[in-house]
Amino acid sequence: MPDAAYESAVADLVAANRILASQGVLDGFGHVSVRCPGDPSHYLMSRSLAAALVTAEDVVMHDMENRPVREADRQKKLYYERWIHGEVYKARPDVGAIVHSHSPTVVPFASTPAPLRPLLHNASFLGFGAPVFEIRKYVAGSDLMISTAELGRAMASVLGHKAQVVLLRGHGNVVVGPTLQVAVFRAYYTEVNARQQLQAIMLGGDAVVYMDESECRTTDKVMTANADRPWALWKAKASADGS
Amino acid sequence: MPDAAYESAVADLVAANRILASQGVLDGFGHVSVRCPGDPSHYLMSRSLAAALVTAEDVVMHDMENRPVREADRQKKLYYERWIHGEVYKARPDVGAIVHSHSPTVVPFASTPAPLRPLLHNASFLGFGAPVFEIRKYVAGSDLMISTAELGRAMASVLGHKAQVVLLRGHGNVVVGPTLQVAVFRAYYTEVNARQQLQAIMLGGDAVVYMDESECRTTDKVMTANADRPWALWKAKASADGS
Amino acid sequence: MPDAAYESAVADLVAANRILASQGVLDGFGHVSVRCPGDPSHYLMSRSLAAALVTAEDVVMHDMENRPVREADRQKKLYYERWIHGEVYKARPDVGAIVHSHSPTVVPFASTPAPLRPLLHNASFLGFGAPVFEIRKYVAGSDLMISTAELGRAMASVLGHKAQVVLLRGHGNVVVGPTLQVAVFRAYYTEVNARQQLQAIMLGGDAVVYMDESECRTTDKVMTANADRPWALWKAKASADGS
Amino acid sequence: MPDAAYESAVADLVAANRILASQGVLDGFGHVSVRCPGDPSHYLMSRSLAAALVTAEDVVMHDMENRPVREADRQKKLYYERWIHGEVYKARPDVGAIVHSHSPTVVPFASTPAPLRPLLHNASFLGFGAPVFEIRKYVAGSDLMISTAELGRAMASVLGHKAQVVLLRGHGNVVVGPTLQVAVFRAYYTEVNARQQLQAIMLGGDAVVYMDESECRTTDKVMTANADRPWALWKAKASADGS
Repeated sequence: MPDAAYESAVADLVAANRILASQGVLDGFGHVSVRCPGDPSHYLMSRSLAAALVTAEDVVMHDMENRPVREADRQKKLYYERWIHGEVYKARPDVGAIVHSHSPTVVPFASTPAPLRPLLHNASFLGFGAPVFEIRKYVAGSDLMISTAELGRAMASVLGHKAQVVLLRGHGNVVVGPTLQVAVFRAYYTEVNARQQLQAIMLGGDAVVYMDESECRTTDKVMTANADRPWALWKAKASADGS
Repeated sequence: MPDAAYESAVADLVAANRILASQGVLDGFGHVSVRCPGDPSHYLMSRSLAAALVTAEDVVMHDMENRPVREADRQKKLYYERWIHGEVYKARPDVGAIVHSHSPTVVPFASTPAPLRPLLHNASFLGFGAPVFEIRKYVAGSDLMISTAELGRAMASVLGHKAQVVLLRGHGNVVVGPTLQVAVFRAYYTEVNARQQLQAIMLGGDAVVYMDESECRTTDKVMTANADRPWALWKAKASADGS
Repeated sequence: MPDAAYESAVADLVAANRILASQGVLDGFGHVSVRCPGDPSHYLMSRSLAAALVTAEDVVMHDMENRPVREADRQKKLYYERWIHGEVYKARPDVGAIVHSHSPTVVPFASTPAPLRPLLHNASFLGFGAPVFEIRKYVAGSDLMISTAELGRAMASVLGHKAQVVLLRGHGNVVVGPTLQVAVFRAYYTEVNARQQLQAIMLGGDAVVYMDESECRTTDKVMTANADRPWALWKAKASADGS
Repeated sequence: MPDAAYESAVADLVAANRILASQGVLDGFGHVSVRCPGDPSHYLMSRSLAAALVTAEDVVMHDMENRPVREADRQKKLYYERWIHGEVYKARPDVGAIVHSHSPTVVPFASTPAPLRPLLHNASFLGFGAPVFEIRKYVAGSDLMISTAELGRAMASVLGHKAQVVLLRGHGNVVVGPTLQVAVFRAYYTEVNARQQLQAIMLGGDAVVYMDESECRTTDKVMTANADRPWALWKAKASADGS
């Protein structure tokens, strides 16, 4: 792996952490990862740290079993739920980046039978499904977190092969994308769509008009190609507000 | 066109972009345009850029077919939905400025049968109608965006000759006004009215009292004459917050 | 009137404007006034200006007919709805200060049959009533604003002799208090109570528990005596955020 | 008590005040206390002051009857509701810190029959109960505040021996924890859970899935052990925003 590509990936990952904190998707908890450039069997993610505080020095290279690769990283405390990342990367070769957040308005959808559905064109990826992972089906009396490889695999299997989002009951959500910019874009618009869908249901109940399947397919391509516009804006804003 | 009038229009357009970003009407997407002073067959709008980042150097003069007029602007990437502007300016000689936004609380109204209606006096212009453009009636499997002259014309025809706002299902809205200050004022209060109307419906259902037609006519004149008061405030605020 | 008392009243009025803007009660519109110290037949209020921009130089002494007293102020543009102030001061000798705002969550209560009621102890003054002024009963096709002495008198008569708040349908509200600090306190907590009451109704419908009459009487005395604690905090915050 | 432990406790208490203000849990009113390190029969709390303004100089050592211990503190104005602290510390030896707030979205739950229940894993402590203290059962026509030892004892008795939160009708809530960091964590997540539960009820009514008892027990241990992660983030943020 050439140094320049690696350093650029690290810089983007730090920016992703700051952006997600600045935009209210990540708070004290949650994490974002990206596959190593040119090396799909490893991924980059911060050591255990609140997203707003992450710097390049905190980035750890993990293998697919979520172990730190570099000697110097072996003593670092890693995220408790890093299993999310390894298992999704293994199950989904199309996935290049992952955001796990407790983004606030998605939690109510994770804890009710109301499905999260694509209302806003920026959230067209929700048309590929937004299944709910009910951890209670796999383990009783848990802390609701994805703290083992088994739970990571179960969650990845609920995510399946088409969906770009899986909701975690009582906990949060996991959003994936082909690139870091697209995963960040989708994590942000998952929250926005949840807010707008909740309001639309309050206004219109069953009469809400959602995007249909073909609209979702078309729109997702356009959004994926344009994820760089808000990225630039959000990065500037995160710098300005000190995140 | 005298240089001073042109430069003043550009400065106001930059301020409008910053104001709309600072007030949460525009985010990474959306745009605002104004007719060229003294030359109604051209309009000014930024090249494709998030509103908060627009400067005078980014302003492009477009003709009614949404093409850049100046040689130097021909290589610039333009907004994907610029058709909104040309087609509305052609259909509505009374319109001097246009805002296209994804302002958050208007989207639920665009995706349910509940009509957006004038609740707050500042939003009296809603009394002239707030029709919904359902793109699915014109094209199947689209990306919901106004990306052709045909769609621009269809949307302008739903806007009609009286309304000052048209809602775009699953997408956003387009607000017009005789001047840039009035269009910005209306874009802001479209969002405020949507929030307050949603809350009023939750409190009062069908018993909500809206403004009647004659109240709307009277009030809109007063508001149009006073759009400069919040403009000055918002401009100061946008400067202060770095937008 | 001694100079020191006058200057202190002006400084407090400027602070009240900044506080109300910083706390989201006033925006581009709305105003706050206070009786002249030692001279109950005059009141102080800014010339027509957004609250966040008011300085000591903008303060105008008005008589009970809402005319500027000083020669130097005769050319200044005054607030369009200054009639609110003169008529309430004339009708209510107990009132020492008045806030007229479009505070956002109060508007839905002004436009539905749901009465605003005291839920939160800080808003115990709502127990003295929160009647709605329906301007349509007095004038057809108006701009909803209190733009004449007649409308000011009609509104003051709906406010009556006990209430500390009157809601203006489709428009906003007017809050009064014995002192400027108490009026500001009440304007802020009118908004907070509206938000919490709306949420409580969504949760509990008719089963919401409101404060009873004797609780309101007792509590209002305590709150009136303690309005200086948030005032100091809000003043510091308004300074810090540049309002 | 060694000086270093005492000074560290004071510094943490100041940080807790700033964090709770910065995160919107405390505003002009409310307070936070912590037991003296190594001396469970005394506690530290600011003199009567808005949380955002508290400095080390404002910290007063109180005895279990809520009296200032040091000569120099005898003239200071103390919080009107300090009885909350003494009575809870006496009744609950497991409690090391207490937050009393008017955190906004908890008030609607305090004033309706809808119980606050654990929806989000960070709020698993709600599984130990969130009873409502209805002051009207103890005293008629009160100001709703805990202004006597008797009311403090009544409230502590409603809190009971297991719950970590008690809601005060029409007023606010009291949250406890073994340490200051845990009490702050819980005060914050009580508010977050209230917002998410309200939204979930609007979406799902009776079909909302809450955490079950064993999940709450397991999760609360993990959260208690990890309360330091958001604390560090919130402290940095409070410094940055001047709280």
